[in-house]
Amino acid sequence: MKYDAAVIGGGPGGLSSALELSRKGFSAALIEKRTPGGIAINQGYFISKVLLDLARDDNTDNLEEIPGIINLRRETARTGWNIKLQEAGVAVYSGKAGLIDKNKIEVISRKEEKKEVISAERIILATGNRPVSPLDFPADPAKGIITYREIMAGNWLDTKKIVILGGDVEGCEFACLFQQLGSEVFLLEQENRLLPGCDSEIAGLLEEKLALKGIKIKTSSTIESFNCFKKEDKKNGNGSRLQLNCYNIDNGAFFEVETETLLLTGGAEAVLPPGAENLGLARTEEGFIEVDSSFSTSVENIYAVGDVIGGIASANAAIMEGKAAARSAVRENCKVDYQNLPYVFFTSPQVTGIGLREVDVDDNNSNISIKRAEFTENLRALTLGSGEGKIKLIISEKDNILLGAHAIGESAGELHALLTLVVREKISLKKIEDLPLAHPSLNELIKRALEK
Amino acid sequence: MKYDAAVIGGGPGGLSSALELSRKGFSAALIEKRTPGGIAINQGYFISKVLLDLARDDNTDNLEEIPGIINLRRETARTGWNIKLQEAGVAVYSGKAGLIDKNKIEVISRKEEKKEVISAERIILATGNRPVSPLDFPADPAKGIITYREIMAGNWLDTKKIVILGGDVEGCEFACLFQQLGSEVFLLEQENRLLPGCDSEIAGLLEEKLALKGIKIKTSSTIESFNCFKKEDKKNGNGSRLQLNCYNIDNGAFFEVETETLLLTGGAEAVLPPGAENLGLARTEEGFIEVDSSFSTSVENIYAVGDVIGGIASANAAIMEGKAAARSAVRENCKVDYQNLPYVFFTSPQVTGIGLREVDVDDNNSNISIKRAEFTENLRALTLGSGEGKIKLIISEKDNILLGAHAIGESAGELHALLTLVVREKISLKKIEDLPLAHPSLNELIKRALEK
Repeated sequence: MKYDAAVIGGGPGGLSSALELSRKGFSAALIEKRTPGGIAINQGYFISKVLLDLARDDNTDNLEEIPGIINLRRETARTGWNIKLQEAGVAVYSGKAGLIDKNKIEVISRKEEKKEVISAERIILATGNRPVSPLDFPADPAKGIITYREIMAGNWLDTKKIVILGGDVEGCEFACLFQQLGSEVFLLEQENRLLPGCDSEIAGLLEEKLALKGIKIKTSSTIESFNCFKKEDKKNGNGSRLQLNCYNIDNGAFFEVETETLLLTGGAEAVLPPGAENLGLARTEEGFIEVDSSFSTSVENIYAVGDVIGGIASANAAIMEGKAAARSAVRENCKVDYQNLPYVFFTSPQVTGIGLREVDVDDNNSNISIKRAEFTENLRALTLGSGEGKIKLIISEKDNILLGAHAIGESAGELHALLTLVVREKISLKKIEDLPLAHPSLNELIKRALEK
Repeated sequence: MKYDAAVIGGGPGGLSSALELSRKGFSAALIEKRTPGGIAINQGYFISKVLLDLARDDNTDNLEEIPGIINLRRETARTGWNIKLQEAGVAVYSGKAGLIDKNKIEVISRKEEKKEVISAERIILATGNRPVSPLDFPADPAKGIITYREIMAGNWLDTKKIVILGGDVEGCEFACLFQQLGSEVFLLEQENRLLPGCDSEIAGLLEEKLALKGIKIKTSSTIESFNCFKKEDKKNGNGSRLQLNCYNIDNGAFFEVETETLLLTGGAEAVLPPGAENLGLARTEEGFIEVDSSFSTSVENIYAVGDVIGGIASANAAIMEGKAAARSAVRENCKVDYQNLPYVFFTSPQVTGIGLREVDVDDNNSNISIKRAEFTENLRALTLGSGEGKIKLIISEKDNILLGAHAIGESAGELHALLTLVVREKISLKKIEDLPLAHPSLNELIKRALEK
């Protein structure tokens, strides 16, 4: 078969590429290595969000029920994606893709019973990344040293004690998950704070909240090596006892932590289809595929988006990149405004925001004001019993527009939608002050902050 | 004391009036009859939302804990309002207000130990309404015939069987509450559908959902009379047995329903401060205070907002009216765009929306298209296990703007914020299609519908 364009990889970036190509009138194929309709099956964020929500609802007394619940919700998601692709007229190939040359792809079906070659004038690589250990030693599930993959497979949820290396989004979300599941949780981060890229005030509040829940946090710290002892009592936990040899990066002080499980986060490497190395695709220092601002690789008519290009490994960045690459492929111009991409972290409480952070504000910039509101000032947060939380707005006084906004609080995530539109469309804050939001609603927090 | 303006009543309308007056440089007083800081204490919606959320979380095994939880959350809300008023410099009077003349108000403190007279050039009445029976017989708690007031006081939550008269927001929210609390619920509505003012497709879906939960619904029906028998087994329920004599409005067929409790909704009368009758305020046919579009009453420099003027009895209408009346009082022009006020119903699932409904669309209007998306197409709804739900968008094809949007689904409420801004600011839907919302998030449902 011949297509105008083929997309390899069915994650958020690949899906959005394929759908956009089709919308633009291109014949498009999408190749995904999982079972037919298997797109979204192994998407880490999907399963982790289900887990987080299940854990939060205290419905997880019976850990054995979890895989069943996940499967059910995943089935529905799968059906949804299939309908979407079908509607759009995207040809879906289920199998492993190999690049024969820059216009030909070999698709080998899962059980290797079938091989097919398709050709495409343009190819978009959305093959993602895989977790790797950021340390000098690799993950080793047999010893209790794991990455998110083991958890996504539904294992390790019953660990009694877990050390999580990495205090960025992934580490913080898993810390909340395991704390909610009843594990003793120890979080290690090499920077001097959690969520290093996030607004520091909000990150500080998250750190406080996690500590209050009983999560032990050590910043400026990492792991040098470990000793593994088989545990005598096999009934409890996963059978291992790990002694981690850690040290404080600032002062060099050593300390030991005993645990059953060590979860490594924060390391990733590009996943490339076989044959990619023969095309001479330029790579970044870390081995990701190098792209320009239109997501073109060094090889003409080959594009790459999402985790395989490194950078922000977030689903909505991948979606925007997928769309932009598709538009480049149809010779339209489209860039991604990374500065104004919203983020939602499914920690407990949730963290969300967009745009300028306080740290980005120049000290000499008297045109910028920062306004805040507390969740306790919002009746919807109070009726929900959301507890403490905060929103902060970074405002350009001169134009009366919003340059950035960051929030922490239970259910804060959906606040990002209104904030994103306000920031990106430079909507006058006067209009937001007068916006008749429903009362009580969490989004009123934005208006409350503006009143100050 | 002399003020530029005084506001009587500390509900959402009164609070928003007082804060806006103060923001505009007027000296403002707010008089509220509850204990100091008691504003928001008896706001029905606050308590009912807490109850609904508690019931939904299945944390209500012990009904005795509920009043304590409500009190705690209410205390925080109270503190919040007080800080807000203090910040704004509004003088708060705690006591019952009586109108001496059109510029003088007598404030009698709760225990009647103190009387004070304050004068104000302008007065804004935000005294609300009280529930009345919409039937030929009155509420009578001794017989088990109640209004929301009894429930707000924390009583009747343990009723085994309840008949709710009225299938508008209030009736539907209480039906969900009592169903979640384990009562057998029977909902009667005199129109031929629930939520008569709402989009009919969405209302129909709510009706299906409620029926699936086991709530018995009879539309086109009302109650003619009742017989009350004392129940023999006083241990169960509230001690009454009511036999309701009902009939179908369309065909006149009679039917009987037995119940323990009858909750009357849908009837309200204006609450006026003593002395108001002497001022000659014009009244509507239903006895509410008549106002023009600037919320001026028939008496110069007296304004009225919120439930006391009838119309839409919603908190966000009251807030907008309060603000508009304050602006009229400072001689600014400000109208309320009722067509584009969002609504959120805290039923389970939630119902939300804004603007044009399908029924408002002229059959000959080919410029309007309707697009829909299902909650099962949204990954955030799936991870949350939200179940079924739907969003529908009413779009002007000519301008590519949104004229209305309506949704039903768990957690759908906060969707109203983005929709409200898009409708009110006539933002091109092209911009919403390209808006980089976080993934997964419920607000992506809006983009999903636009893709179709």
